[in-house]
Amino acid sequence: MQTTLTHTGGMAFDVEIEGFHLTVDAAPEFGGNDLGPRPKPLMLAALAGCTGMDVVSMLAKMRQTWTRFQVRVEADLTAEHPKVFQDFTVIFEIDGEVDPGRLARAIALSRDRYCGVSAMYRAHAPVRIRAILNGEEQPEPPPAS
Amino acid sequence: MQTTLTHTGGMAFDVEIEGFHLTVDAAPEFGGNDLGPRPKPLMLAALAGCTGMDVVSMLAKMRQTWTRFQVRVEADLTAEHPKVFQDFTVIFEIDGEVDPGRLARAIALSRDRYCGVSAMYRAHAPVRIRAILNGEEQPEPPPAS
Repeated sequence: MQTTLTHTGGMAFDVEIEGFHLTVDAAPEFGGNDLGPRPKPLMLAALAGCTGMDVVSMLAKMRQTWTRFQVRVEADLTAEHPKVFQDFTVIFEIDGEVDPGRLARAIALSRDRYCGVSAMYRAHAPVRIRAILNGEEQPEPPPAS
Repeated sequence: MQTTLTHTGGMAFDVEIEGFHLTVDAAPEFGGNDLGPRPKPLMLAALAGCTGMDVVSMLAKMRQTWTRFQVRVEADLTAEHPKVFQDFTVIFEIDGEVDPGRLARAIALSRDRYCGVSAMYRAHAPVRIRAILNGEEQPEPPPAS
């Protein structure tokens, strides 16, 4: 796998991934022109996308349906250089006809077996996963056997 | 810092970061419609963007100029689940009026002091940095003092 970033001026780079393009840029206070997101949150998008696709795929196979399926990732940065994330919290927010036990099973399988991004980040800092189903916080899923 | 992914159908998610939007999707062989890149390469874009912005910023302050400034990141995935990157190689390719010693110093400072993404990934796997300046491979920069 690879990506190529090409400097386009100031602090901005064109990002090419598999023929798709996006722009990253710094905030004006760091010399940028805010033409795109900062690079570091792309780490959070990688984590949300990896585990989100796992869970969507498993729930769809179990014929569960939803009207809303969001995955939010929150992470706090240290104050000192190098600025690193101190922890990661993944929050699934799902509204729909989804069985809580099946959701817990899908989340546990992604967390413990399938999601490579989660496995990589855990080498650096804790990755916590929460789920809110139809407005109700769910208990933490037990380890996938 | 945070990001929110919203499932839009199939395996596709809208990614929102600081008001910017992009789409991630799976390849057709994994149930997707290829509407955007896979999530995992976003990890590589985060690394390239983080160290690329560091080096661009330092070289600009040193009044160096270039006609091409690219940062490529290559990484191999393991075959087994969870599929993780075995190593990361960052390759700077720069053409222009850039002093090799100043480039080495900027790369070393990013690698050893400033780039938080590199620091995080190193907890999981080696991060190697190469530089090719005006077509010539540069020696590996010594540690930043």
